[in-house]
Amino acid sequence: MSEENLEHTLARRFVVVLNRTQDLVNIAGAVRAMMNMGLERLRLVRPDLFDAHRIAGIAHGSEWLLDRVEFFDTLETATADAGMVVGTTARRRTSPYVWDRPREAAPALLAVAHEAAGPIALVFGREDSGLLNEEIDRCDRMLVIPANPQHSSLNLAQAVLLVLYELRLAALAGTPPLPTPKRRSSPGTTAELQRYFDDAERALNTIEFFKSRNAVMVMRSLRAITRRANPSAREIKLLRAISIEVRKYFERTRSA
Amino acid sequence: MSEENLEHTLARRFVVVLNRTQDLVNIAGAVRAMMNMGLERLRLVRPDLFDAHRIAGIAHGSEWLLDRVEFFDTLETATADAGMVVGTTARRRTSPYVWDRPREAAPALLAVAHEAAGPIALVFGREDSGLLNEEIDRCDRMLVIPANPQHSSLNLAQAVLLVLYELRLAALAGTPPLPTPKRRSSPGTTAELQRYFDDAERALNTIEFFKSRNAVMVMRSLRAITRRANPSAREIKLLRAISIEVRKYFERTRSA
Repeated sequence: MSEENLEHTLARRFVVVLNRTQDLVNIAGAVRAMMNMGLERLRLVRPDLFDAHRIAGIAHGSEWLLDRVEFFDTLETATADAGMVVGTTARRRTSPYVWDRPREAAPALLAVAHEAAGPIALVFGREDSGLLNEEIDRCDRMLVIPANPQHSSLNLAQAVLLVLYELRLAALAGTPPLPTPKRRSSPGTTAELQRYFDDAERALNTIEFFKSRNAVMVMRSLRAITRRANPSAREIKLLRAISIEVRKYFERTRSA
Repeated sequence: MSEENLEHTLARRFVVVLNRTQDLVNIAGAVRAMMNMGLERLRLVRPDLFDAHRIAGIAHGSEWLLDRVEFFDTLETATADAGMVVGTTARRRTSPYVWDRPREAAPALLAVAHEAAGPIALVFGREDSGLLNEEIDRCDRMLVIPANPQHSSLNLAQAVLLVLYELRLAALAGTPPLPTPKRRSSPGTTAELQRYFDDAERALNTIEFFKSRNAVMVMRSLRAITRRANPSAREIKLLRAISIEVRKYFERTRSA
């Protein structure tokens, strides 16, 4: 998926539906998670409390998103135009529906998002009860967030984040992973490395390091460490400079 | 990985380190995320505020975890026994370190968790500033959480959750056998590495290496090279010995 399509799909083809939320702080947390993951459409079904000013005080820079929040009286009306209704829960309950983990479901949800007539509604239940059975009945499929069985109940905003994160990563999956750390200069050559080893050996001789140590073994270890680090030309230059300065300094102090 | 090993690894071999946290609510959110994902060891470096009673009021059932929280004055002491220090950030900064995404890093972190002498420290910065450059200097590797580039700054508890979630899912997926090459001695701890960096800096000061060079930049390069090499405890000892001998030789020649 191109970067542009990715952002468009996440921003336009998904709506987050919070059902009868109790705590305004959780709405703010969900809003921040939406912005973090690139979603923009929030629907609230009868929240106990809504105060855009206070929410924006917690989720900084969210005014534009809050201005467009849509309010509904029932979960039914909030999902009426949806191409698919996806519920979330921490516990899998006995029911004949499709239950899977966000990671496994995310690619399929993205595919549906492209072809469905309406947006995909991601539905999150009330903090104290989650989605009730009759609300689960309205969902086309259910997501179960994997968690420690001893403490499986996620905070509402945390659950929103994990589902949106999986959607974003599934959308990103086509894009390559982060490039390996860029070095500011080209990789060092074998010859440069060898010059460093020679300088290091001379420096160690200068400070009489080999008086009580095996020079061959010491130099072998130094070579192994340095080669594993795969230093750049600039880094080799720094390592050489240190060895050279050790000798220069002691030559200066000796002649002084 | 067996279910039992999985829970043991997550609970015992990882510590979450929150550095100078400003908001008690975020500590509570992190604690809840830890319980959700099966982690138990929390370390706090000089939090602005800590009140176990209030935190347990937000993160229900967390008293047992809060009773065992360890407090530290510095990030250095909080990570001294760590087998590896892993930092997190929303923005990748120019630096020569290893940066990757939590999903890509998680299997390797689990593998290290099994073999390392100390626990893996997962370090999270202060809410307003994240990890500072000198704090990043203490990290062996950095995780960058993928997010919407327009709103990349995650809430602290949300960042904790995503990293722990990836660890849990990687553990659930079963980790392959260790890909890292066998070393002849155990891997070095962070504290040993830090002692080497301190000794190296003192040695470079002794030979007046910083007279015409930027000490911070030089030490950052040295750290990056050394960490990429991932030296064993024996190798770190050798590197330290060199730094110490430079100073000893200097003292001998001065008194001669």
